[in-house]
Amino acid sequence: MSKNKTHFNSANIAILGASGYTGIEAIRLLVNNSNYNIVDLSADSNAGMSVSEVYPHFSRINLPDLKKIEDINFSKVDAVISCLPHGKSQKILSSLPTNIKICDLSADFRFDNIQSYEKVYNKSHEAKGLQKEAVYGLTEINRDKIKKARFVANPGCYPTSALLPILPLIESNIIKYGTIVVDSKSGVSGAGRTLKNNLLYGEVSEGFSAYGLVNHRHSPEIQSQITNFGSSEYKVLFTPHLLPIKRGILSTIYLSINDNFNLENVVNCLRDKYSEEKFIDYSDTIPSTHEVRGTNFCKMQAFFDENTNKVIIISVIDNLIKGASGQAIQNLNLMLGFDESDGLINFSMFP
Amino acid sequence: MSKNKTHFNSANIAILGASGYTGIEAIRLLVNNSNYNIVDLSADSNAGMSVSEVYPHFSRINLPDLKKIEDINFSKVDAVISCLPHGKSQKILSSLPTNIKICDLSADFRFDNIQSYEKVYNKSHEAKGLQKEAVYGLTEINRDKIKKARFVANPGCYPTSALLPILPLIESNIIKYGTIVVDSKSGVSGAGRTLKNNLLYGEVSEGFSAYGLVNHRHSPEIQSQITNFGSSEYKVLFTPHLLPIKRGILSTIYLSINDNFNLENVVNCLRDKYSEEKFIDYSDTIPSTHEVRGTNFCKMQAFFDENTNKVIIISVIDNLIKGASGQAIQNLNLMLGFDESDGLINFSMFP
Amino acid sequence: MSKNKTHFNSANIAILGASGYTGIEAIRLLVNNSNYNIVDLSADSNAGMSVSEVYPHFSRINLPDLKKIEDINFSKVDAVISCLPHGKSQKILSSLPTNIKICDLSADFRFDNIQSYEKVYNKSHEAKGLQKEAVYGLTEINRDKIKKARFVANPGCYPTSALLPILPLIESNIIKYGTIVVDSKSGVSGAGRTLKNNLLYGEVSEGFSAYGLVNHRHSPEIQSQITNFGSSEYKVLFTPHLLPIKRGILSTIYLSINDNFNLENVVNCLRDKYSEEKFIDYSDTIPSTHEVRGTNFCKMQAFFDENTNKVIIISVIDNLIKGASGQAIQNLNLMLGFDESDGLINFSMFP
Amino acid sequence: MSKNKTHFNSANIAILGASGYTGIEAIRLLVNNSNYNIVDLSADSNAGMSVSEVYPHFSRINLPDLKKIEDINFSKVDAVISCLPHGKSQKILSSLPTNIKICDLSADFRFDNIQSYEKVYNKSHEAKGLQKEAVYGLTEINRDKIKKARFVANPGCYPTSALLPILPLIESNIIKYGTIVVDSKSGVSGAGRTLKNNLLYGEVSEGFSAYGLVNHRHSPEIQSQITNFGSSEYKVLFTPHLLPIKRGILSTIYLSINDNFNLENVVNCLRDKYSEEKFIDYSDTIPSTHEVRGTNFCKMQAFFDENTNKVIIISVIDNLIKGASGQAIQNLNLMLGFDESDGLINFSMFP
Repeated sequence: MSKNKTHFNSANIAILGASGYTGIEAIRLLVNNSNYNIVDLSADSNAGMSVSEVYPHFSRINLPDLKKIEDINFSKVDAVISCLPHGKSQKILSSLPTNIKICDLSADFRFDNIQSYEKVYNKSHEAKGLQKEAVYGLTEINRDKIKKARFVANPGCYPTSALLPILPLIESNIIKYGTIVVDSKSGVSGAGRTLKNNLLYGEVSEGFSAYGLVNHRHSPEIQSQITNFGSSEYKVLFTPHLLPIKRGILSTIYLSINDNFNLENVVNCLRDKYSEEKFIDYSDTIPSTHEVRGTNFCKMQAFFDENTNKVIIISVIDNLIKGASGQAIQNLNLMLGFDESDGLINFSMFP
Repeated sequence: MSKNKTHFNSANIAILGASGYTGIEAIRLLVNNSNYNIVDLSADSNAGMSVSEVYPHFSRINLPDLKKIEDINFSKVDAVISCLPHGKSQKILSSLPTNIKICDLSADFRFDNIQSYEKVYNKSHEAKGLQKEAVYGLTEINRDKIKKARFVANPGCYPTSALLPILPLIESNIIKYGTIVVDSKSGVSGAGRTLKNNLLYGEVSEGFSAYGLVNHRHSPEIQSQITNFGSSEYKVLFTPHLLPIKRGILSTIYLSINDNFNLENVVNCLRDKYSEEKFIDYSDTIPSTHEVRGTNFCKMQAFFDENTNKVIIISVIDNLIKGASGQAIQNLNLMLGFDESDGLINFSMFP
Repeated sequence: MSKNKTHFNSANIAILGASGYTGIEAIRLLVNNSNYNIVDLSADSNAGMSVSEVYPHFSRINLPDLKKIEDINFSKVDAVISCLPHGKSQKILSSLPTNIKICDLSADFRFDNIQSYEKVYNKSHEAKGLQKEAVYGLTEINRDKIKKARFVANPGCYPTSALLPILPLIESNIIKYGTIVVDSKSGVSGAGRTLKNNLLYGEVSEGFSAYGLVNHRHSPEIQSQITNFGSSEYKVLFTPHLLPIKRGILSTIYLSINDNFNLENVVNCLRDKYSEEKFIDYSDTIPSTHEVRGTNFCKMQAFFDENTNKVIIISVIDNLIKGASGQAIQNLNLMLGFDESDGLINFSMFP
Repeated sequence: MSKNKTHFNSANIAILGASGYTGIEAIRLLVNNSNYNIVDLSADSNAGMSVSEVYPHFSRINLPDLKKIEDINFSKVDAVISCLPHGKSQKILSSLPTNIKICDLSADFRFDNIQSYEKVYNKSHEAKGLQKEAVYGLTEINRDKIKKARFVANPGCYPTSALLPILPLIESNIIKYGTIVVDSKSGVSGAGRTLKNNLLYGEVSEGFSAYGLVNHRHSPEIQSQITNFGSSEYKVLFTPHLLPIKRGILSTIYLSINDNFNLENVVNCLRDKYSEEKFIDYSDTIPSTHEVRGTNFCKMQAFFDENTNKVIIISVIDNLIKGASGQAIQNLNLMLGFDESDGLINFSMFP
């Protein structure tokens, strides 16, 4: 395999952890994308089964059967999307051939600072070398680094929804030092295909609650990115909530702006930053998760409250696409020299 | 009819605007409550129909037919719950016999300051005399005034969820002057039985959005109560969101506390304030709307975020009960000399 | 304890398998019912916990902690509701003191014919003596037997919805021999608090499917009751479907009537049969599960299709109440000499 | 414009009634289909607005503004999808230039027999000439006629789900004369964007009911197709139900088979008939609406009940795609000489 990315006509891709929700979403997005051939799918617990035995809506698609990771021949693999659980990715991904382009959806490589990782996840990092190489895959912010990267740590779904509107404002020195409140609401698929009482239909439908208060793991992820990008003088307060919907994150962000700025500056900053982007829209109407469901879009809009002098930003994504598998393919497209948006442009189905 | 409340064995009650969601919820709560005889039900658009023609789940219940307000003989009425729409209540309620105890669910009489009302609702107030008499019916806060009141303005659903945890902390001087963020999420019944596209099942299910940003009418209602109770130095920033659920409000409240206070003070303040209350619980687990659906309860819990030194409070109610018809009956029970909790104690159905 | 039922002022009741959905529904229904004192709650997997640790919406209620069955002192127990799983009930219930009134919600004792049971459940029956004593607890059909019974096998939820409209028509010789199609749709709580992928919110919401085709265990239960009550010439074809709702069963029943009968006879038969019943309504509008959710009601309506000469009957119940714990309490009320409807009259909450 | 269909590189298409649910679904399906240029969109009530003003999820798409039908210049239009309401289509569509290929989604032209139409819809037919020309657009059954047609009456959503499994069995003489029960369940989008109480989220969620019993208009549509295709000795009994989902129809079909046939014949007949079809699958697992949501697929599976000697068939479609706009495009693809499946192949998103 050539190292010159532009030589690819199409890349052989393997998906690890392919039978979870982010795995099958990666499959769905790749099936009609001529840049990629899906050559291997791993799923330890379902090894030996076909994908359509686990998910019958795939019955029409010709896909390799699920196998164990150790049964994959990585010599013919050009790219990997890893949907392995947190903690499992480090050993496995650091053992893969180094010519393979990898996008990892776990949290294992999202912290530049290994001490932060170890504190948040309460375990020692098992692939410190690879961590140094990892690029944080928030595409619209780190595009140039991603293009050159071999290994990308795909952002968490909540951080994606929060950082896309916040970072450009920090870059432009619009946000005042101090607290940034990120009040986020996510659909249940963010928790994966996990068998827990609180994810049963009977216990989700027609209810709503917060969870992970003041110690959710996405909080330090958001904080560390903001600190790296701007300053540790910005202090993030992140509160996740569980919505009775399948997909979608809406983050309501409360922040103060520096004295010489106003709402117009906020709006212009975000509009300018994203005017050429194919997947980010500054919106003129209040964004709803409906508008981005099933797509790789992020939509955002900003408001100013005169009573408190605060700016409020609403940001929406589909947690499984822009918040996971879609952004991963967007990153791999860049890493492999394809057009960034290949296979990712579509519009939300409504109703 | 005697003015001495304790003489009541049971009160003849009329419900105005009885065919909306708060109206039928009042009926449902009163049907098995021996304190009350439902003697009249008004519903202009459905006048002439039986309640069960509009809502077949009432088919077993013996109720007066719906009629026009002008056809009600108020001389035999002791109490009124008014579920009339905003703007309509002023003229009608100020024309009723003055011996009738009234609890009004509209926003028409919630502002002590008539200028505030007129600014928010953009119309002149048509019952200024009655406004002076009106008591804001947040039961656990204004109980003594409510007991003596003839006319109670029932709080809005969002304000109920926000003020119950905030006001005791203001009373105890725990909250620092400045911004109080109230990020609230409500089920669709808060909008009533309104025929709008955005309330259709096909356009609500599996989606989530904010609305009424920086100008929702409940924002000045919350602010004015906090100002009256404490100081205008507290500045409320209120953001409502529409949940794909039928009932329930969850408010996530972000505030700063004065330097000499900590989370324990917050918790103790709320616990102490509500320890004897039958409908308010300081909770040891993160409250979910599931726990209060179908009940008159409010549950709340507080948290402290070390990164930002902010206190977060989660508060949940059923918007149609504690946020509307349940609190109205709680208030009327007080106004009429009944036990405050009569007919209102039950437990949420789950799943 | 006296054997004379009318001597009860209140009965000490134990609920076995109390931490499942039918268990907590029995608790909820009994809490405000002065006929009963809940004295023991068993839940093997959650033994040692309080009910409110498992279900926080019970936090206000004073209940005995969950314990293992072997730790219950049955000498002070007058009545048992058993929510144990199928297969587990036989040994345990046949070992209880014989003065205890028992209502069993499992399928273990629903088949008069032990061969039928053993064929359907593919295991030998371990309490054949108790089976002979068991009365099938379809209250409105077997009331007299239930009054005298010590042990009642509570009907399945689907059979309840199907048999209540069918049996009176068989009794009146209205139904023609041959096929009776029962196309039933149930909410997810019918499957209990079971951790399976197909019960996750993400896999239930916004979807619909059939299951258990041509071999669901409620099919022989319905057939055997119809055979016992009428004739084996009636042949039941039962198809269950999983609705994306929490509670509720709607059965659509297709049948042929004998030549000398018409729709009016069908309607009159059902009206007459149930005119004095507190929980069964022949309805004049098409019944919806909404109308019975949270209640012990069954509503039904019949139609005639001229094109095919078939009668169609729609029947709705709440599967956890009339289809489980509500009917169990209705039966125990009878067995213990209380008024049959005590603690069971309420009206559906809407919306 | 040439009349030779194969000369089309791409067709200019107008959508009439474009702001309803079937209209926007047609837009969504056509946007990325290079066979078509959307040149005009009509929507009387929203004329003058952009599509994205009505549906913000279309904000990224460059589309003609909505206009009144009389403002469309049909001389540059090659094809029309008409989503006009029943009753409105006749006059308008019969007045269009006769070189335009038209697929009409209303019920106006679905009855060969004009007397049937007039009886069912209780109005005289205003375009009897065009009715004679109309081909019933059940693609897999009438493909050859559709290829040559200028005007196609697209089938109703319920009839599509019912006829696709039934007609091949009738063609093979497998079904016995007599009753065919079609028990169908549909998501709310089948009712369109209609402002009615019973379509509000608060009145749909968590409930289920039947409607249109013994007189739904799709009943004679199904009967007339079966009569035309086979014999009036087949008698259809159709019962629709409203599911609390946005999209999807599941039909459970009960029928008897002739004595010389068995389940294997049924299965083989359906497998053979549809083995080469791109959009119809005979399934080996019980089909769920989840598997076809967002797609043009129909999945079906058959079962045999020994107790009653009946065959049960489960059939699922997405009512807005195979049941409406997708099948319309499939038909237009044929009428215009394109590949039938162009722009219609995709896989369901899950969860």
